[in-house]
Amino acid sequence: MTPVETDDAGRVAVIGCGTLGASWSALFLSHGLDVAAYDTAPGFAEPLRASVARSLAQLAEFGLTGAGRLSVHPTVADAVAGAGFVQENAPENEAVKRAVLASLDGLAPAGVIIASSTSAMLRSRIVADCATPERIIVAHPFHPPHLVPLVEIVAGTEAVAARAAAFYARLGRRPVILRREMPGHIANRLASALYREAVNLVAEGVASVADIDAALCNGPGLRWAAMGPHMTYHLGGGAGGIRHYLDHLGPSQVRRWESLGTPTLSEAVKDAIVEGVGEAAGGRSLAELEARRDRALIDILLARTEVAGR
Amino acid sequence: MTPVETDDAGRVAVIGCGTLGASWSALFLSHGLDVAAYDTAPGFAEPLRASVARSLAQLAEFGLTGAGRLSVHPTVADAVAGAGFVQENAPENEAVKRAVLASLDGLAPAGVIIASSTSAMLRSRIVADCATPERIIVAHPFHPPHLVPLVEIVAGTEAVAARAAAFYARLGRRPVILRREMPGHIANRLASALYREAVNLVAEGVASVADIDAALCNGPGLRWAAMGPHMTYHLGGGAGGIRHYLDHLGPSQVRRWESLGTPTLSEAVKDAIVEGVGEAAGGRSLAELEARRDRALIDILLARTEVAGR
Repeated sequence: MTPVETDDAGRVAVIGCGTLGASWSALFLSHGLDVAAYDTAPGFAEPLRASVARSLAQLAEFGLTGAGRLSVHPTVADAVAGAGFVQENAPENEAVKRAVLASLDGLAPAGVIIASSTSAMLRSRIVADCATPERIIVAHPFHPPHLVPLVEIVAGTEAVAARAAAFYARLGRRPVILRREMPGHIANRLASALYREAVNLVAEGVASVADIDAALCNGPGLRWAAMGPHMTYHLGGGAGGIRHYLDHLGPSQVRRWESLGTPTLSEAVKDAIVEGVGEAAGGRSLAELEARRDRALIDILLARTEVAGR
Repeated sequence: MTPVETDDAGRVAVIGCGTLGASWSALFLSHGLDVAAYDTAPGFAEPLRASVARSLAQLAEFGLTGAGRLSVHPTVADAVAGAGFVQENAPENEAVKRAVLASLDGLAPAGVIIASSTSAMLRSRIVADCATPERIIVAHPFHPPHLVPLVEIVAGTEAVAARAAAFYARLGRRPVILRREMPGHIANRLASALYREAVNLVAEGVASVADIDAALCNGPGLRWAAMGPHMTYHLGGGAGGIRHYLDHLGPSQVRRWESLGTPTLSEAVKDAIVEGVGEAAGGRSLAELEARRDRALIDILLARTEVAGR
C-alpha cells in the first residue's frame, strides 16, 4: 500500500463515528483525505480522536502517513457540505438507515456517492426513501476496515459501482462488486456457513472451542489468507486442476455437504461456547485479544504486500 | 519454529511417497529425523528426492536445517525396521488402508505409533484388521504439511493421542485432538461448509469466481489466519464479548444459516467454476500458482511466529 493522490474526494464525510466510523476515518486520513465527522452522540469527538490516533499509528507501519485533517461537526448538513464522498455508519436498523440515507441524499452535494457500511441490509430497501437512489451504494467493509482490505460493493448502476471501486482501490482496499444484492453479501455468508459447522462441532462434543479455532487458523484459514477456496481446489486437483477436482472429488464434497450439521443455538450450546472461549482466552482481556489480532493482521498484511494479483 | 531434539522417533518410516509423503519427509528431515521411505511405485526415489529438496529449501527459511538422512527401501518390512514412528500415506481407499495398516501393524516394532494421514476415513473402520489397533491413529495434515501446521489426531486412547501430539508439537505442528471421530475430522468439515456457500454464490450469479475468492482471502480468511471464528465473534460482541454476541446477534446468525444455499454441483455450475478459475488464474500454470501459494504461506508463517498462544 502506498499513499494515493486525492481527486474528487478531497474531503470525506463520515456519518456515524463509533468503532467502524473511527476506523474508516483513520484510513481516509492516512491517505491524505480530510474527514468531516458527524455523530448523534454528544461528546463523540474525544473518543473518535483517540481511536483515530491509535489506528493512524498502525497505518504508519505501512508507510501511510498522509496528513488529512479531521474536523467534527454539529449537524449532518455541516459535515457533508463540500464532501466528495460520504461513508455512512448508522446503526443496523432498517428504519434508521432509510431515514439517514434519505437525509444524506437531500443534503450531500449533487452526484457525490453516499456509501452505506451496512452488513445485513439490502440496498434496494434502504434507498427506498431517497430522491436520487442511483448514487447510494452499499460499501460493506470487514472489521477493522483500516486494516482488512475487503470492501463489498452493491450499486444501482455499473458506472457508480466502478467509480466507488476505483475510490476504494486507491485507498489500498480490495473492492468486490456484487452482480446482484444478497442478504449478508458474500463474505459474511461464507463466514456464517463455516460458523454453523463450527457450532455443530461444539454441540457434538468433537473438540474444544480452542481446538476448533486452532484447526481453522492453522489449517484452511491460514491457506485462505493466501488464496481463495476455488483456487485452492484448483491446486488440489493434481495435473487436471479444478476440472479434475470437480469431476473426481466433487461427489465427495457433495457427500460432505450432506453430512454437515444444522445445530440449534440452544442455551446449553451457548454456554459451552462461552465456557470454551473463556478457556481459550486464558484470562486475556478483550483489549489484549484485540491488540493481538491487530498485531497479527498487520504482520500478515506486511508479509503479503509482495504477492501480486490477489 | 526451532530444530527439536529427537527421542524415540530418531527414524520415521514414511509409507506412501506421493506429494503428501514427500512433504512429510521434508518436515521430518528438517528436524533432524531420519526418514525410511517406501512406495509401491517403481522408481519413486527420484521424484521423492527432488520434491524433498525443494521443500527443504523452503524449510531452511525457518532456520530448520536439521540433517536427517533419507533412505529408500524395497519392502515395507525393510522401511519400518528400527523406526520410532510410522507415517502412512496410502491411497484414500478403505480396503487399501485396512490392508496397509494391518501389514504395518504386523511389521513395525512393538509399541511404535502408526499414523494414517487419511482425510476422509474413520479410524474405527481402517483399524478393523489390526492386531494391536490401540497404536494406530489418524494424524491428518493439511496440504502442504511441511508448511501448514495443523495435524488432526484421532486415537483409541488418550495416552496415545498425547504421545502423538507431543511428537508433532516438537516438529512445530499444531496438533488438535478429536474427542471422538467424525467424517472429515474438523478442518475439512469447516472448509466444506464454506465451499458449499461459495459454490452457491457462483450458481446464483452473485459475483465472479475471482471476486468470491478475493472476498474470502481479503476478509474473513485473512482474519482467520490470525484468530479462529469463536474468538473472532468474542471480539465482535463489544464489551460483553461472546456472551453478548450470542444473546444479541445469535438470532441473526441463525437467520443467516437458514438463508444459506444448498447448491447442486451440476454440469452447468461446474462449467461456471472451471471458467471462473481459468479467468482468475490468468494464464498462470499450476506450478506458478503453487509456488505463489507456498511463497505466501511462508511469508505469513514467518510473520506469525511472534504471536504466542495460537
